[in-house]
Amino acid sequence: MPGHFTFYCNKIEGDLAFFDEVESKHAIQVLRYGVGDEIHFTNGAGLSMRGTIENASKGGFSVRIIESIQINKPLELHMLMAILKAGDRMEWACEKITELGVTQFTLFQSDHGERGRVNVERLQKVALSAMKQSHGAWMPQIKVVTFKEAMEMAKHIAGKYIAYCGEGEKAGMAEVKLPAAVMIGPEGDFSVKEFEAAQNQGWKPLDLGEQILRTETAVVAVAAALRLR
Amino acid sequence: MPGHFTFYCNKIEGDLAFFDEVESKHAIQVLRYGVGDEIHFTNGAGLSMRGTIENASKGGFSVRIIESIQINKPLELHMLMAILKAGDRMEWACEKITELGVTQFTLFQSDHGERGRVNVERLQKVALSAMKQSHGAWMPQIKVVTFKEAMEMAKHIAGKYIAYCGEGEKAGMAEVKLPAAVMIGPEGDFSVKEFEAAQNQGWKPLDLGEQILRTETAVVAVAAALRLR
Repeated sequence: MPGHFTFYCNKIEGDLAFFDEVESKHAIQVLRYGVGDEIHFTNGAGLSMRGTIENASKGGFSVRIIESIQINKPLELHMLMAILKAGDRMEWACEKITELGVTQFTLFQSDHGERGRVNVERLQKVALSAMKQSHGAWMPQIKVVTFKEAMEMAKHIAGKYIAYCGEGEKAGMAEVKLPAAVMIGPEGDFSVKEFEAAQNQGWKPLDLGEQILRTETAVVAVAAALRLR
Repeated sequence: MPGHFTFYCNKIEGDLAFFDEVESKHAIQVLRYGVGDEIHFTNGAGLSMRGTIENASKGGFSVRIIESIQINKPLELHMLMAILKAGDRMEWACEKITELGVTQFTLFQSDHGERGRVNVERLQKVALSAMKQSHGAWMPQIKVVTFKEAMEMAKHIAGKYIAYCGEGEKAGMAEVKLPAAVMIGPEGDFSVKEFEAAQNQGWKPLDLGEQILRTETAVVAVAAALRLR
């Protein structure tokens, strides 16, 4: 069993790791791990750990760490997506980009997009389980912001791209190199005002080809195209 | 309104197109198209058409074709995916690869995969609506086959790749050129027997990087990486 699953733990003191109730339910109740069993886990911030369970209950369990490896953070890939009406499509995108090692996932309000509330806690749960499922060691940072804030967030990145459907000179995917930030607009595209504001802050228009992609498809497709090279 | 939606029609006689009940419900009832309105539609086999509605009812409507353009078939990209337990994940993959212009989507039985029934009709509906949504003109061919049949289906393609997680020499994504066929295995990977059989038939092992991707994520990610270049 050990190695088949990766668990999550963010409470580490010395060589002891204390797992919360959610993880305990999964490990102890569902998967029937017990005292003495070896377990693999991560803190979601690059630490990949291995240890043995010392004491276990439904409410929580502790593990003595045998081995701890720091996994390098993948090259920065910040995907920014216009808020969607359909929460399940945002969750879906969140799951996939986590598997693909996106380092930051930002949902932003846009002129032609939805302004509905986003359940960030829910998205974080989705990302967590996707990270565990894909045996990753890094959780993406997830934020919900305004369009103005979204533009500010990637100030430090040279490779900033905005997937604009309007006419004009555009960069192709082949030109995009990591670290990069890519902004995907709503179904109705970015407003001209938004596009111009982004360009003034150094965001280059990006061409995603002839096929029209749904917002969440474009987010996952761009992340995949940049990771699988 | 015309141009905002792309409809589907596979019954064309001379310069008249006859739409079925499903499309009629959408166009006439939901979107309130009426006689004289212009409508855009495709036959899912490369024809992109424009015409005016001549007579309309809930049960069906006919359109006089004004313009008909043949859209070139995209370079062949055949994605083959092990059958999954979760139908919704197969439907999700089907929707996304259709948006990404995959020409053929084959679900195959595998030693370590599910053998459950696949609702092909449902997948075709998903692909149809994805094609309409993305204003495409080509529907992917969808089939459910055995592993042996799956290998046979891509005989004519030189670029055949199998995403095998086991050790050994592998091709990188950068080497893959269209036309291509890419086979993605189940969660438990291909069996050694399957992998060797595929290699004997010219399938090259493909490396998808360090991150472990779910089956349906790998299918969509590979399609995206090959389309967005």
